[in-house]
Amino acid sequence: MRKSYETIKFMRQSKYFLKTSKTKPAEDVSINAILLEQGGFVQKVMAGVYTYLPLGWKVLSKIEAIVREEMNKAGGQEVFMPSLQPKENWLATGRWDGLDILFKLKSQHGYEYAMGPTHEEIVTPSAVTIVNSYKDLPLAVYQIQTKFRDEPRAKSGLLRGREFRMKDLYSFHTSSDDLSKYYDEVMVPAYNAIFKRLGLDALFTEASGGTFSKFSHEYQVETESGEDTIYVCEKCAMAKNKEVYEPGAVCTSCGGSQFREAKACEVGNIFKLETKYSTSFNLNYTDNDGKQKSVIMGCYGIGTSRLMGVIVEKFHDEKGIVWPDAVAPFKVHLLALNIDKPEVKAAADALYTSFLDSGMEVLYDDREASAGVKFADSDLIGIPHRIIVSGKTIAQESVEYKARSSEESQLVKIEKILSFLK
Amino acid sequence: MRKSYETIKFMRQSKYFLKTSKTKPAEDVSINAILLEQGGFVQKVMAGVYTYLPLGWKVLSKIEAIVREEMNKAGGQEVFMPSLQPKENWLATGRWDGLDILFKLKSQHGYEYAMGPTHEEIVTPSAVTIVNSYKDLPLAVYQIQTKFRDEPRAKSGLLRGREFRMKDLYSFHTSSDDLSKYYDEVMVPAYNAIFKRLGLDALFTEASGGTFSKFSHEYQVETESGEDTIYVCEKCAMAKNKEVYEPGAVCTSCGGSQFREAKACEVGNIFKLETKYSTSFNLNYTDNDGKQKSVIMGCYGIGTSRLMGVIVEKFHDEKGIVWPDAVAPFKVHLLALNIDKPEVKAAADALYTSFLDSGMEVLYDDREASAGVKFADSDLIGIPHRIIVSGKTIAQESVEYKARSSEESQLVKIEKILSFLK
Repeated sequence: MRKSYETIKFMRQSKYFLKTSKTKPAEDVSINAILLEQGGFVQKVMAGVYTYLPLGWKVLSKIEAIVREEMNKAGGQEVFMPSLQPKENWLATGRWDGLDILFKLKSQHGYEYAMGPTHEEIVTPSAVTIVNSYKDLPLAVYQIQTKFRDEPRAKSGLLRGREFRMKDLYSFHTSSDDLSKYYDEVMVPAYNAIFKRLGLDALFTEASGGTFSKFSHEYQVETESGEDTIYVCEKCAMAKNKEVYEPGAVCTSCGGSQFREAKACEVGNIFKLETKYSTSFNLNYTDNDGKQKSVIMGCYGIGTSRLMGVIVEKFHDEKGIVWPDAVAPFKVHLLALNIDKPEVKAAADALYTSFLDSGMEVLYDDREASAGVKFADSDLIGIPHRIIVSGKTIAQESVEYKARSSEESQLVKIEKILSFLK
Repeated sequence: MRKSYETIKFMRQSKYFLKTSKTKPAEDVSINAILLEQGGFVQKVMAGVYTYLPLGWKVLSKIEAIVREEMNKAGGQEVFMPSLQPKENWLATGRWDGLDILFKLKSQHGYEYAMGPTHEEIVTPSAVTIVNSYKDLPLAVYQIQTKFRDEPRAKSGLLRGREFRMKDLYSFHTSSDDLSKYYDEVMVPAYNAIFKRLGLDALFTEASGGTFSKFSHEYQVETESGEDTIYVCEKCAMAKNKEVYEPGAVCTSCGGSQFREAKACEVGNIFKLETKYSTSFNLNYTDNDGKQKSVIMGCYGIGTSRLMGVIVEKFHDEKGIVWPDAVAPFKVHLLALNIDKPEVKAAADALYTSFLDSGMEVLYDDREASAGVKFADSDLIGIPHRIIVSGKTIAQESVEYKARSSEESQLVKIEKILSFLK
């Protein structure tokens, strides 16, 4: 964030593109929809379609930055593929008619497009021009972008949208062994690192694998709003999606045979595509024996906007959201009570400036509103660290500090607050 | 960029998702299309629709980062609005039938959407829930995202696409005076700063203003591939779009009456919307006299992917692209000649590592290819600073340095190369 007159001005809540609401959204009863809409993070434009307001866009950007870092560490090269996709590519894979949630767009000029719900139909022919020899492999490319799905029912806030944000990575290999190695030794640890950084306990879950693999794998977060039913091994917490769970099943990981049923939301999935798409587009390479062979592929998705919804489902209380530090829109919420008093305003302004000077992300509630309104909004928005400035605290040359996740508050000397927060 | 085993590996050209091509694209004769496709920056998926490969995505991300910085400094708050937009909103403004390039999408479930070519139909009702009082104004929100246009003819590479990237900012004011002040004193300087940082001479140009203003303003860059014809004042370089140029015209800025005709490409436009959209969506505020009044709006666009094309049109020679430093995909192109010689490989690997350690953005051509191929590719890709390591330079404990923009090269001692490049 650049520091300038205008930027400073607009981190003031009185000038922030934000209004909280006491009215619960009419149609959606999921916790993430209620809290994110009432807190001014998102606005529902229509079913399954949201605007991310400044607060919400900050959270989503932080989630996506974490995903991006881990994908780069996993050797992913970032690209950006189009949403408008040629009908022919989808005919080539049989998914023009075979994928029920595909949005089909007709132009006035006679063209037909698919609105990308995923990008195998683009990335596979793209790799044809890049991959010639075994020496060019392995490769991994990814993107973070908007996807479209013609869902019959969009629901549960950010958990199932018609337009949503996603990271999708595609890997290319000379052999199924190399794919397995990348899958197990690079992508599984990368996914674990992402969910750990987000504070989420995402269960590694076996799901149906399609034609080429016995299983694909999902990352499932237990939550009542989830659409999936999973069976969690009582011993090691590896899970099975209902679609592959059979009576008498044994845990693939530890051999355990006791499972408990749970509702869960899928936040990521990884999938061995093998040669399914490379065959459709003649994505071949010349091996070191001089022979032409099909490139082996894997794909790895994470729903970044869905993650935002899941985080709210997991981290909230009866008053509002309790953001984990890693994805909070701001680190500090500075509340000035009775800001009409000149000494309060002066002290709060000075603190605000010193926070900005030290590079801290701070939202400054400089509104002329009651203490009750400010506390309620602050609880709803859920910024992790709250600093209160009032006539009472100033008299003691202090501010009041309270963590959002705690009921305790304490007085901290103004001169010590910066080091206290670090 | 995080440093790790994989990241290091993938900044090696042998493992980069990049293949240059000697074949000119068949259908498009514009310079930006030819060089960006041959250089491996973009891939044409179909007319007017491109994939940004890693090299191209790096350039576009740098352009967008510059735009973002300047919009933040101008008080813009970043949001993210949907591409799927309700038909009703477009009916409300009369643009469902009135805007010829609108993509209309029909779902299988009976819904109709516009695919956003611009976002007045979303941002205006969005502001209704935020703006109540004159105290809430002024406000400015912006986004950087993908737009869609059902163009009859997509052409000239990135200059006119059916899917393209754009920054759009919307400002909200209590009065036309306040809008004018923001327009003249904040946004015009912000736009000038952006184009200056990109090394572009963008001419401030009067264009047609629609119903509410006499003029809107465009930023036009002179280029033969441009679709616009402008008339440039010989005295002060302010310009008029052909659509508002009349014989005997006088320059609004300096009073000059001599104009020269030029072909140009529009890279930005700023527009006083006044109450056009706030009326459609009842975007009102309570003024300090207690009366309800319409909010006054302005909008401000920059085509970020088009800018990438224009930069190539302006900065190239017969051998390829000559990227300005500010948007180059990498700062340094490290070429190892005869890398099959162990002493060359060792020296080049060591340099590569020391560049990464110092945080420099470097692409390392570690391929087993001839010097001629490496030089030709390097000229085509156009990274500003080239370092050559060969048996000959190593014998002198040196590397050869050449700026892409110069014909001169020089030997630099290996121990001094880091400080030389800084």
